[in-house]
Amino acid sequence: MSKETKAKSIIEPRVLKGFRDFLPSMEIPKKAITNNLEKHFRSYGFVPIDTPILEYTEVLLGKGGGETDKQIFHFKDNGERDVALRFDLTVPFARFLAQHQSELSLPFKRFHIDKVWRGENPQKGRYREFTQCDFDIVGVDNAEADFEILSMMDSSFSVMGVQNYQFCIAHRGLFNTFLAHLGLLEMSVEILRTVDKLRKIGKEEVQKLLHELTGEGEKANAILQYISKEDEKEPFLTTLDRLTALAGGENPHSERMRTIYSYLHEAGIEEHFTFDPSITRGLDYYTGIVYETFLTELPHFGSVCSGGRYNDLAGLYTKEELPGVGSSIGLDRLLAALEELGSPIVSSASSADVAIFNTDVKHFSHYDRIARVMRKDGLRVAIYLLNKKIGVQYKWAETNAIPFAVLLSEDDVLSSTLTVKNLRTREVHNALSIEAAIALIRKSTRRLTTLGGR
Amino acid sequence: MSKETKAKSIIEPRVLKGFRDFLPSMEIPKKAITNNLEKHFRSYGFVPIDTPILEYTEVLLGKGGGETDKQIFHFKDNGERDVALRFDLTVPFARFLAQHQSELSLPFKRFHIDKVWRGENPQKGRYREFTQCDFDIVGVDNAEADFEILSMMDSSFSVMGVQNYQFCIAHRGLFNTFLAHLGLLEMSVEILRTVDKLRKIGKEEVQKLLHELTGEGEKANAILQYISKEDEKEPFLTTLDRLTALAGGENPHSERMRTIYSYLHEAGIEEHFTFDPSITRGLDYYTGIVYETFLTELPHFGSVCSGGRYNDLAGLYTKEELPGVGSSIGLDRLLAALEELGSPIVSSASSADVAIFNTDVKHFSHYDRIARVMRKDGLRVAIYLLNKKIGVQYKWAETNAIPFAVLLSEDDVLSSTLTVKNLRTREVHNALSIEAAIALIRKSTRRLTTLGGR
Repeated sequence: MSKETKAKSIIEPRVLKGFRDFLPSMEIPKKAITNNLEKHFRSYGFVPIDTPILEYTEVLLGKGGGETDKQIFHFKDNGERDVALRFDLTVPFARFLAQHQSELSLPFKRFHIDKVWRGENPQKGRYREFTQCDFDIVGVDNAEADFEILSMMDSSFSVMGVQNYQFCIAHRGLFNTFLAHLGLLEMSVEILRTVDKLRKIGKEEVQKLLHELTGEGEKANAILQYISKEDEKEPFLTTLDRLTALAGGENPHSERMRTIYSYLHEAGIEEHFTFDPSITRGLDYYTGIVYETFLTELPHFGSVCSGGRYNDLAGLYTKEELPGVGSSIGLDRLLAALEELGSPIVSSASSADVAIFNTDVKHFSHYDRIARVMRKDGLRVAIYLLNKKIGVQYKWAETNAIPFAVLLSEDDVLSSTLTVKNLRTREVHNALSIEAAIALIRKSTRRLTTLGGR
Repeated sequence: MSKETKAKSIIEPRVLKGFRDFLPSMEIPKKAITNNLEKHFRSYGFVPIDTPILEYTEVLLGKGGGETDKQIFHFKDNGERDVALRFDLTVPFARFLAQHQSELSLPFKRFHIDKVWRGENPQKGRYREFTQCDFDIVGVDNAEADFEILSMMDSSFSVMGVQNYQFCIAHRGLFNTFLAHLGLLEMSVEILRTVDKLRKIGKEEVQKLLHELTGEGEKANAILQYISKEDEKEPFLTTLDRLTALAGGENPHSERMRTIYSYLHEAGIEEHFTFDPSITRGLDYYTGIVYETFLTELPHFGSVCSGGRYNDLAGLYTKEELPGVGSSIGLDRLLAALEELGSPIVSSASSADVAIFNTDVKHFSHYDRIARVMRKDGLRVAIYLLNKKIGVQYKWAETNAIPFAVLLSEDDVLSSTLTVKNLRTREVHNALSIEAAIALIRKSTRRLTTLGGR
């Protein structure tokens, strides 16, 4: 093809609105985080599953379709089937449970970290393609399972290298008991949806909406009293006692919350958990505890990890009632937050521990031999593959954040030694044995955090 | 919702034709293999990238569209854009390179392990959704880069726990030199496509097609002579010398092959590589070495790893010529092969190293404490969360292939000891300290292979 015709046919390289590429500088930390989470989930006996990204639209949306409809990517495939890209990992999991019931042994603990798609209007930190990280326990309805998910949420955040977070918990069953006590159970879904807006529109606006909804100022006030905490630092059990009284006295939901709290306390992690009765999770399939998670330094990021207990997850696909409890971490939002916080996880995307410079290509097999030995010892080794001036090779190593270079002189080749340069300090170490070189590099590249992705 | 109305609205849980779920028994080995590959690629200084699953159709198919068209999933999104699911990882990578040229430093070494979609008719081992594992070096055209990819292919197979494989290499440049020598360079693409069918339709049929194509029996015979090896075990350099002669004598491509071979020999891995001149890779963007990989015990699986050198990968999107060399492993086919071979990687999908049985829920916090200590020491620990008879708990551990159980007697709780049962041998160890219990479990659960995904 001549240069001329080629120039004409060039297509502008671009991605769709709301989609994005991950360059190594972001993909390396993303993978480090997901790898660590996977290892962490597996340490709790959770297992991975995978489901198709594309499903029958009917399976994902139910027979009616409804509100989610406009937000999802759906189309007719070549076989004229109505198909859609999954918009979360929960619905496919429900379908999966119903379909493979006989192959699974309950309680079933699974995790799933993968992409989902929604056709929302993209905003800062919101994409049409994003990654969710879900973990659920199915087949159990008790405080022990509720606690295990909360406890995993807590340890997950430390595994991700996140500090300063707060889990805000409430209980949908307790809230419904309270509404029943007020005689408002019939309109619980509408009330929940309204209460869910508290963070966005403020107390006054919510009170107005509740008044309109219930038709009674007194009941609107009672609801507002239930969902508000006078003192943000009100202890967990004090809030629980107060809400229990408002709901008409002791009940199984309060008891459940008390047991969960006792486990959190025994595990020594209770200070990360607040009882926040304004948390409702707008969706109506939750039946027990619900929670959201906020980064104390970046509250404007919204919740980075949410979920709760549902008592009939797969009801759309099977008559069997499958109770469950689970949580979902929004990885993209969390990555953006870590970037904003200047976390070392995001800034340490080095492509290798050491570069072997190409000082004379006739020694290439010798470079390869050295690289093999170093890799066997766990180092990441990149041989520079072009025949370029040494200055270009330094520049390349710098751009790729590689901290060390091996340069071989003719003497090195003859006597099987190495010259190693620390590219940060510019210190040069001559005539090292390969073992000494490995020890030197390993010592200085010890990962800043445990998040090296190793 | 009453039982009755619920029964009516149940949707059959099912997946689309050619798509499938991965249950833990397959997802655990899949993840173990991809994790090991990622670690392996990173040890060579390769870095991960990620691109959207959905792109402008024009970007993926070029302005013409063409043959691939029928095989891809494409549709109009809500914004009336023509969009398509990626059908490989190479085209998005080419687009990525053109778009981010200024942010990348050449040579650029990347890997990408993810799903792609094609609307082909599903066959055994062929799916509409499948996982590719690509690794490429861009910005270099020399024997050292060619060798590095081949060398990584070799070590990748051992990292995946695969034995008995053969890499079949040829050189497109050498083949074209040969065709030019015959005066057939103009129809090289058609000839390559025909030769590519050799494995499927046999020698005779190919000869017939070549005769029709070239119009000359003699030339068809010459091509057949080039692509055939009398002796399957003909040494690499002998084949190279023979083909060089057929192509009219020494030329840069033969020299390149000789250098690559010398590196393979120096690295001591040359026995895994055969010069197989019938390998052409039907696609027309290859310009240098090309290769396919066959499992010697399962040749009917076809190639499980293929690729080659291309000298203008991103030409559709940029005027800059970006030479590269790369390889793609077909993970689904490989998983199916490992399953057929009874590989321990596929059969060792245990959900945890040890189950803590729920003998009395009042001790739950004690179980949790033990689990935390064990997890810190690297064990995978699943607490049984239901209040069920011990027989049910044994059955659950068995189904999940958990090799050990911790059972706590009242004495154990009082004296802070553990009773550990080996669920395979049924051996019981009483009154163990937690350290002794960890040592016992660790000793027996040492991974069968290095592929534990740790």
